[in-house]
Amino acid sequence: MKILKSTDANFKAEFAKIVHRSDMDVEKVMPIVSNIIAEIRKEGNEAVARHIAKFDKWEVNNNLAISQEEMKNAYEILSQNLKNALKIAYERIFNYHEKQLEKSWMTFEKNGSMLGQKITPVDRAGLYIPGGKAAYPSSLLMNTIPAIVAGVGEICVCTPAVGGVVNELLLAAMHVLGIKEAYKIGGASAIAAMAYGTQSVKKVDVITGPGNIFVATAKRLVFGDVNVDMIAGPSEIGVIADESADIHNTAVDLLSQAEHDEIASALMVCVSEEFAKAVKNEIYEILPTLKRENIARKSIENKAAFVVAKDLNEAVDLMNELAVEHLEIATDNAYELLPKIKHAGAIFLGHFTPEAMGDYLAGPNHTLPTGGSARFFSPLGVYNFIKRSSIISLNKTAIDELGEACMALADAEGLGAHKLSVKIRYKK
Amino acid sequence: MKILKSTDANFKAEFAKIVHRSDMDVEKVMPIVSNIIAEIRKEGNEAVARHIAKFDKWEVNNNLAISQEEMKNAYEILSQNLKNALKIAYERIFNYHEKQLEKSWMTFEKNGSMLGQKITPVDRAGLYIPGGKAAYPSSLLMNTIPAIVAGVGEICVCTPAVGGVVNELLLAAMHVLGIKEAYKIGGASAIAAMAYGTQSVKKVDVITGPGNIFVATAKRLVFGDVNVDMIAGPSEIGVIADESADIHNTAVDLLSQAEHDEIASALMVCVSEEFAKAVKNEIYEILPTLKRENIARKSIENKAAFVVAKDLNEAVDLMNELAVEHLEIATDNAYELLPKIKHAGAIFLGHFTPEAMGDYLAGPNHTLPTGGSARFFSPLGVYNFIKRSSIISLNKTAIDELGEACMALADAEGLGAHKLSVKIRYKK
Repeated sequence: MKILKSTDANFKAEFAKIVHRSDMDVEKVMPIVSNIIAEIRKEGNEAVARHIAKFDKWEVNNNLAISQEEMKNAYEILSQNLKNALKIAYERIFNYHEKQLEKSWMTFEKNGSMLGQKITPVDRAGLYIPGGKAAYPSSLLMNTIPAIVAGVGEICVCTPAVGGVVNELLLAAMHVLGIKEAYKIGGASAIAAMAYGTQSVKKVDVITGPGNIFVATAKRLVFGDVNVDMIAGPSEIGVIADESADIHNTAVDLLSQAEHDEIASALMVCVSEEFAKAVKNEIYEILPTLKRENIARKSIENKAAFVVAKDLNEAVDLMNELAVEHLEIATDNAYELLPKIKHAGAIFLGHFTPEAMGDYLAGPNHTLPTGGSARFFSPLGVYNFIKRSSIISLNKTAIDELGEACMALADAEGLGAHKLSVKIRYKK
Repeated sequence: MKILKSTDANFKAEFAKIVHRSDMDVEKVMPIVSNIIAEIRKEGNEAVARHIAKFDKWEVNNNLAISQEEMKNAYEILSQNLKNALKIAYERIFNYHEKQLEKSWMTFEKNGSMLGQKITPVDRAGLYIPGGKAAYPSSLLMNTIPAIVAGVGEICVCTPAVGGVVNELLLAAMHVLGIKEAYKIGGASAIAAMAYGTQSVKKVDVITGPGNIFVATAKRLVFGDVNVDMIAGPSEIGVIADESADIHNTAVDLLSQAEHDEIASALMVCVSEEFAKAVKNEIYEILPTLKRENIARKSIENKAAFVVAKDLNEAVDLMNELAVEHLEIATDNAYELLPKIKHAGAIFLGHFTPEAMGDYLAGPNHTLPTGGSARFFSPLGVYNFIKRSSIISLNKTAIDELGEACMALADAEGLGAHKLSVKIRYKK
């Protein structure tokens, strides 16, 4: 772990390394993923089965689909505690995302013409949910609910079944969400199957969901043939802390991200070197008590970085440069800093908003842009499952008023038939 | 040109070919574009200059930037007619896009916690505007105005200068729009320079704008490192016409798209074979009168297709399957059909709304999804230049109310530090 001071001579260069933390080595996996996609486009199910045998170690035998019964059975054996928790999470996530729903609109001009924008859900969405050790039922909720709110006609889920087995809580969550169509397909194969279709999986319009570098690379390669939500890398947290932050709580919050993945990043910008050192020590105190100690320790050792800024203003500027996925503002005046935050996937205000609450049930989505891409990507939302159509309705008066200017521009661009299409309606 | 009837025995197979009209042969250009990008990432300006010498046939000598003076001079020599036309277009496009501006929002819960969504413009946008024969100043307006409305901090324009020369009307439009930064770089080089930066061009966050297959492929390859608006192919029009449509006007409107490009598609679904044949004949009557006859003729011969549907309901269903870029509804009851239109880039209602009005100054954007991608892409808009951050602000009461459910889920996912980050704040 690094502790940098913004007054250090080599600070700019060292900080730049953290800003560019995300450079995913796409080049390395590109040919592999490219091949997987090509095979699935050519052979369909047969290639899917071959990749499953190789990566997930089970024989498909036409058993790709997850049945409604499997989902229901998994739900029924769930503890009442977890049933309640899923219900609370579902409702809160649903309520938040409903507020993202855009309305179609129309505006009328004096001459009777109308301009507008029509919002339509996509016909069919494909959600990718990672499996194996990182099977997070919460990701299923976070991906499915915005699609439901958007009004998507058909929702299809793909998740890897290592050894043929799907995580029980994930199956139970499918039941809660009313998933009608789900397949035991993982990784780049799942993205290719959903993007181009196979004998079993019908082509979708939009693919969303997290995944490892193979999934991310596959999403890059299919983009354009379908839409995708974003290209995400390893998870990360950034904390802005001042002297009002609790050392223990801050250490735990940083570890809650580090425990996700050896290459997850726990970043902090604070305003005192003493505080930085105290949090670091506290992290090493807590590490041995964690179930996922090994993962968290590697993440902290290789990826964590603390920066000591001159003051909170500089801290905010630096955090904007980092454009982190999860940003906790652990200060007494967290609301005051909100207007200055430009780039972050999700912003957690104050001492009682640990990131984990956002991961499960605060309401906002936990599928968020990573590695600095919060500069241009948004959290997964209802907007990922709709698209817009412009509407134009003109009339004789509008053509008479605007026709001359339109013909002048068409003429200047050398497009004769464009001009003619206006001329034949102008002052007629 | 094909005329299909929906009652034909082989209709499904023939129609499917039109639905899949877009299959761009990306594979072929991918290695070339991939190389261009790799060279620019490695060598910067030097590679840019080499590609310009090769493709645009001029020697750069550190003259990449377009000066404010060039823009101003081009504007000053413009006819008053065109100055007016640009002003009208600017205002109408601006007014329409202002209506797309989203507001940040907050919602408060009874316990005092707050959930919200913050809208922030991207810091820096890169607009690609094609040059040469297809230099369309209107594209500059359509790309720049949404970025201005969004509040983008820095706007950078790239356009090819074949032989070193930039289209005069394009320069004049830059002056009207107040463009402060523009470069004479074209094709995949421009996309790479904007995506990764060179000694002259600072890296951007979002790249938008139309272009040929090299530009489209480059946008696919850089997606993820920056955001892009969409991957667009050749332009296209779809017309739904009934017996109320004028034969001549319909023929002209179809040609106004055909004249863009030899591989542009003019598609029509009507309800009478007689009408289809009459429009076809009319097109061949008009063709010899067009300045761009050769381009339009090739497009009509190779790419145009008319479908005779049983009735308007079937016509709408078929047009939804085609998901065209520009959809004209040339019927007396165009408004009535609007609710049934699911997939189209822009919808032009009624007999007095030729597509060309939308290309220049009706108000909505003319950068639209092509080749069926209106199933999942939207017109270029203000939303392409902003991104969202979720906001979560909880308090002691909220943690006490929701903590148990959150800890249950964290526990079930095996994430101990997640659970701990809630536990240390729960009922304290």
